[in-house]
Amino acid sequence: MPRNILLHVSFDGSLYHGWQMQKNAHTVSAEISHAISMATGEQAIQLIGASRTDAGVHAMDYPCHFTTESSIPADRFTYALNMYLPDDIVCRKSYEVPEDFHILADTYKKTYVYVIANRQFPMPFERRYSWHLPKELDIDAMNQAAACFLGTHDFLAFCSSDTTTKTTIRTIFDFHVTKQDEMVYLEVTGDGFLYNMVRIMAGTLREVGIGKMDPLYVKTLIEKKDRTKSGMTAPPQGLFLKKVYFHHTNEEGFSWVES
Amino acid sequence: MPRNILLHVSFDGSLYHGWQMQKNAHTVSAEISHAISMATGEQAIQLIGASRTDAGVHAMDYPCHFTTESSIPADRFTYALNMYLPDDIVCRKSYEVPEDFHILADTYKKTYVYVIANRQFPMPFERRYSWHLPKELDIDAMNQAAACFLGTHDFLAFCSSDTTTKTTIRTIFDFHVTKQDEMVYLEVTGDGFLYNMVRIMAGTLREVGIGKMDPLYVKTLIEKKDRTKSGMTAPPQGLFLKKVYFHHTNEEGFSWVES
Repeated sequence: MPRNILLHVSFDGSLYHGWQMQKNAHTVSAEISHAISMATGEQAIQLIGASRTDAGVHAMDYPCHFTTESSIPADRFTYALNMYLPDDIVCRKSYEVPEDFHILADTYKKTYVYVIANRQFPMPFERRYSWHLPKELDIDAMNQAAACFLGTHDFLAFCSSDTTTKTTIRTIFDFHVTKQDEMVYLEVTGDGFLYNMVRIMAGTLREVGIGKMDPLYVKTLIEKKDRTKSGMTAPPQGLFLKKVYFHHTNEEGFSWVES
Repeated sequence: MPRNILLHVSFDGSLYHGWQMQKNAHTVSAEISHAISMATGEQAIQLIGASRTDAGVHAMDYPCHFTTESSIPADRFTYALNMYLPDDIVCRKSYEVPEDFHILADTYKKTYVYVIANRQFPMPFERRYSWHLPKELDIDAMNQAAACFLGTHDFLAFCSSDTTTKTTIRTIFDFHVTKQDEMVYLEVTGDGFLYNMVRIMAGTLREVGIGKMDPLYVKTLIEKKDRTKSGMTAPPQGLFLKKVYFHHTNEEGFSWVES
């Protein structure tokens, strides 16, 4: 009887061309699929991920799942896969989910964090995990701008032109900017995000933070739906997928909310 | 008139064979000397560092100095050198110091931090900058053990046998263990440290933290002066030189305490 196994993985995206399987590209899903093949002896693994992440983007807790005939106990996949995974991908949890569970259908919100190193000279330890901005950022103004994103809007002005999505309407539940020592964290939660959306929002908040854009102008930007008026696409290495929230209840009452 | 220029650098030691210039080895001092040569056009730079750091060890604030005939203003070396330094070495400050200033003679204390990722599975972002210990550590017991190091002692049991120092007596001023989420920080300040001393102290505190050694046994360890009884040498990637404290006053009253 095939089982649907869910994994929670963390990965350092520095050396990958993102999540998605691509021909001739080094991707996170290819590495995990390879580890599953090594552990189970099965070929042609269909690994379903929670999100397409861009090249260079990181994940603290990325859910993905696959079907297997293997007899490995569900919770042991964590250990079995870590034996074959490179050290920039770590499986942190594994368990069985219902046969009809599909992460893309069952996800209801996601949280991303964009990290900025806001100091004159960067620390070398941060270079793979943050965007270095030497000019002091106005955190209050950035929070005022971040609040403009809250609610349901057409985010056409905040997605890259090569997006292939059906609708550009998304709902942002929460968006806060905090500073700890010289590190600035942009934490945003929404029901979904368009291609490059968090990075363009981060680039726009930078304009506000350095005083080049009025915080409330973000409202106008959303209304204008013109990508050329919003900020630059912030570099990938500052972006972390922090958490994917999903739910499911099957007929036998096997249910959970996130995990 | 040659000037003595002091630099404060941060470096990620992951890819280096430590600070010291060595034949056919990739070292931090060789990279900085090369950058100085490129910026000044001068050859055979004599770069004097505050400490010999081991392969793989990091520094948040490492002072080093060199003599130059170049006319580059002292505070501009920061920018001039960063143009030529690789991105795992960053110069954060530069200024002129008296001709007779010598960092090794004028240093009176140093602070190191040893970082432990104390969680079941490591985060991939931490792997270059911490020691992963999955078993939960007893922080109170580790602090009790850390306190045993305070004061002036012969630390023969806490240095590698290939040490070449004249005396193994050192004074520890402060040693605290703190935990923040799942990260544990061992912060120790002393007048100087023997070869591998902080890493052996960290390995010993691990024994205490996992309940394999009584905290007060550290007193006995110090008295026994037997390296084979203390803990393992913790791996280099968890160790950071945090700060070097130095002082100087010259005849013209040019004086400062640390910086």
